[in-house]
Amino acid sequence: MRSLLLVNLPDRIVIREVGARDGLQGEAALSVDQRLELLDALLTAGLTHLEIAAFVSPKAVPAMAGAAELVAGLGAPEGVVRTALVPNLRGAEMALAAGIDELTVTISASAAYNQRNVHMTIEESVAAVAEVCSLAAGAGVPVDAVVSCAFGSPYEGDIAPAAVALLAEQLRASGAAAITLADTTGMATPRRIADVLALTGAAVGLHLHETRGTGLLNLYAGLQAGVVRFDTSVGGLGGSPFAAGAAGNVATEEAVALCDDLGVSTGIAIDRIIEAAMLVEQMVGHPVPSRVAHVGPRSRRT
Amino acid sequence: MRSLLLVNLPDRIVIREVGARDGLQGEAALSVDQRLELLDALLTAGLTHLEIAAFVSPKAVPAMAGAAELVAGLGAPEGVVRTALVPNLRGAEMALAAGIDELTVTISASAAYNQRNVHMTIEESVAAVAEVCSLAAGAGVPVDAVVSCAFGSPYEGDIAPAAVALLAEQLRASGAAAITLADTTGMATPRRIADVLALTGAAVGLHLHETRGTGLLNLYAGLQAGVVRFDTSVGGLGGSPFAAGAAGNVATEEAVALCDDLGVSTGIAIDRIIEAAMLVEQMVGHPVPSRVAHVGPRSRRT
Repeated sequence: MRSLLLVNLPDRIVIREVGARDGLQGEAALSVDQRLELLDALLTAGLTHLEIAAFVSPKAVPAMAGAAELVAGLGAPEGVVRTALVPNLRGAEMALAAGIDELTVTISASAAYNQRNVHMTIEESVAAVAEVCSLAAGAGVPVDAVVSCAFGSPYEGDIAPAAVALLAEQLRASGAAAITLADTTGMATPRRIADVLALTGAAVGLHLHETRGTGLLNLYAGLQAGVVRFDTSVGGLGGSPFAAGAAGNVATEEAVALCDDLGVSTGIAIDRIIEAAMLVEQMVGHPVPSRVAHVGPRSRRT
Repeated sequence: MRSLLLVNLPDRIVIREVGARDGLQGEAALSVDQRLELLDALLTAGLTHLEIAAFVSPKAVPAMAGAAELVAGLGAPEGVVRTALVPNLRGAEMALAAGIDELTVTISASAAYNQRNVHMTIEESVAAVAEVCSLAAGAGVPVDAVVSCAFGSPYEGDIAPAAVALLAEQLRASGAAAITLADTTGMATPRRIADVLALTGAAVGLHLHETRGTGLLNLYAGLQAGVVRFDTSVGGLGGSPFAAGAAGNVATEEAVALCDDLGVSTGIAIDRIIEAAMLVEQMVGHPVPSRVAHVGPRSRRT
């Protein structure tokens, strides 16, 4: 039986695993070899889209050191899209030299957040994204522009959906092949997602966090709105899992468990991705926030 | 703007706060005075329906000791429905003698779970519920039959929605004024909720747990299906918040934060319920699982 409520869900979605980047960037640094072991487990689980590295200063983000070495070590598995985050033109040059398949760049829908994090106006950031897109186009590499604070800013509160949609348009006009709307501080709600997607259209990715315990709920709201591309992180890593109100990403295994039950195909094997979550838990040395990783999928029997 | 996705949500729901019972039953025992202080904070937050006690053996559940004293201490605040869980006829007698407004009784949709927990067949449990209902009817007190494992059993897996609906019918025929469907081990999903409610109708309460991180998501699915009655627990207490894969109830403040944003009225003040969550956190002596309690609602600014 498939009930009325579920008929509009997509048959299949793409999950981009961001654990090796967003998930690990705030952890004590893992070696390149450890990260390759994790990526291997993620590939074994069936993931085909992975954000594997950030070409940033290893001084600023020690956990992301060795990005080029990591890309070389992974090689180019068939059918797999390897993504790297780049903060600027120099990062993009390094990532392209390393042979990455896709770049992500970030820009905030919140002027205050953008100013505080990259000391630029939104307009200046759009121009910087355009430069990266132009460079990447020369290498035939697509750029995904990740719009932070798309569902609210801790400084300004709600960002007008029309402003988010306008920014998405500007980024597309600047050469971004894809737009991902990020809920950087856990302010997304089903209402906000519906309101923003009503103006941007559903042809965006969603990058959701569990800061307020609403990540998976918002992913479900995104599915209902027709979104077919989501960023998630193995084990739900991201942010500080120790701090009260952990701010991790939606856990990949929780997204897969939900989609399995809804009949939405992800191509990811739930038991294998839970194994990968247990592996990264060992590596980081503390419990991952994901509950499905510890309790198992609903199919698990006592 | 209110988007298409949200138009079918109810205008108003009733939240029954179960923190003083389900939330505290697994914690180190709090005194009656501490529990009265907590209940006072919950009333201040605007809650009108509270499960405040369980009339069970204090030897079996030390945290629930002093139920009659608690009811007497609370008195009968105007407009407030005070509920107590009773495991059997003897508990019901004590609860009615204490002057409670509503009884909850539990019965499992899972034969194996019911056998293991109360050593009775489902049929025998229905008969026991009928006895409690008959006794309560004499006192003019309604009984809410809480059906555990309504969305799946850790022993048998999915319980057929038709079996859940049949049990609900039998319980109503046995005198239950209300039916609450409980997701005892976190096996509910939006699909299961839709499938079960398609047969039971939406005139049931939902009692959801976060065992697999899906409690709030399932509450949202329930709202979309037209359910207007939910059990939640301040701070998300319930189960063991220390264990990996904490199995707490949906946090009241997370439900309120969601409903506030959706325009679904609960009558509960978000700041006050967060204060109550901080109070119970102090009382139990460890962090409550709720994220909104620690991070604050999305309206909170940096």
